[in-house]
Amino acid sequence: MDVKEPPNVTAEDCGLPAALEAMGERWSFMILRAAFNRIYHFEEFQAKLGIARNILANRLARLVDHGILMRQPLLEDRRKIEYRLTEKGMALLPTMIALRQWGEQWGSGVPSTRVLVDKKDHRPIRPVTIRAHDDRVLGAMDLCWRQAEEIAPLGAARDAEVTEKAA
Amino acid sequence: MDVKEPPNVTAEDCGLPAALEAMGERWSFMILRAAFNRIYHFEEFQAKLGIARNILANRLARLVDHGILMRQPLLEDRRKIEYRLTEKGMALLPTMIALRQWGEQWGSGVPSTRVLVDKKDHRPIRPVTIRAHDDRVLGAMDLCWRQAEEIAPLGAARDAEVTEKAA
Repeated sequence: MDVKEPPNVTAEDCGLPAALEAMGERWSFMILRAAFNRIYHFEEFQAKLGIARNILANRLARLVDHGILMRQPLLEDRRKIEYRLTEKGMALLPTMIALRQWGEQWGSGVPSTRVLVDKKDHRPIRPVTIRAHDDRVLGAMDLCWRQAEEIAPLGAARDAEVTEKAA
Repeated sequence: MDVKEPPNVTAEDCGLPAALEAMGERWSFMILRAAFNRIYHFEEFQAKLGIARNILANRLARLVDHGILMRQPLLEDRRKIEYRLTEKGMALLPTMIALRQWGEQWGSGVPSTRVLVDKKDHRPIRPVTIRAHDDRVLGAMDLCWRQAEEIAPLGAARDAEVTEKAA
């Protein structure tokens, strides 16, 4: 990744620290993975992950506090609580899949026995990549930073030429 | 994400635990972010991240052990060490950007002051998404699992019909 100005990222001007506040911890990802795989109950998480009960309780509460999971009492038995992904939690899927794919490619060397496929045609998904506005795949060397205020909001420009330059 | 069979993911058959072994920790991501932003020296990491020196030393050593960073003595002064991203470390960029974008969209609500753009035309990159083999954007509900052995290696199928079913 290239920098135009000398790097001066602080905790405030990047989404990463905010994301790590919620997700900067191994168990959070493992709990999320289980939630994506339709694990909803405390006991199921516990059995699945082999995690200590107090740590699991703590991590579930944190994920709920961060709005990533929501607690939902079952209608049939309101003493039973389900943990369900919120829209915010669902939005972590590209990150989770990118990390999983990286682990597959660069990790232990043991290929995953289960493959994520498109439900429609059962063909494996692509590697998660960085894309330009016109969908070209970009690498680290194709990127640089701009100040947000240099980038005109969409629709603010009056004609295509200006839009082209500003957006 | 849908499951065809009852979920039975173990630590061995998914890249995520392997990835979290290296990256399941807040500082690892912050160090990587700094490395992508051309921070190379221990003192620079320390000043940038405000991290305790012993923790920084520990995390850098772990990232080197995992082949994500490499230690490189400077030619001019071999007592000085640079930490440089390896190819394996570079490959974490889609994950980092996906996590950053998620933090921007769902995090503190404070928009990032710096925007990642394509160096070629200075237009912001797209949100990182999950793509089908033909580049359609997929959501969590469009995905399911298949066993790796059900998926024929590319080119193994004899005709288009078989390829369609198997791939």
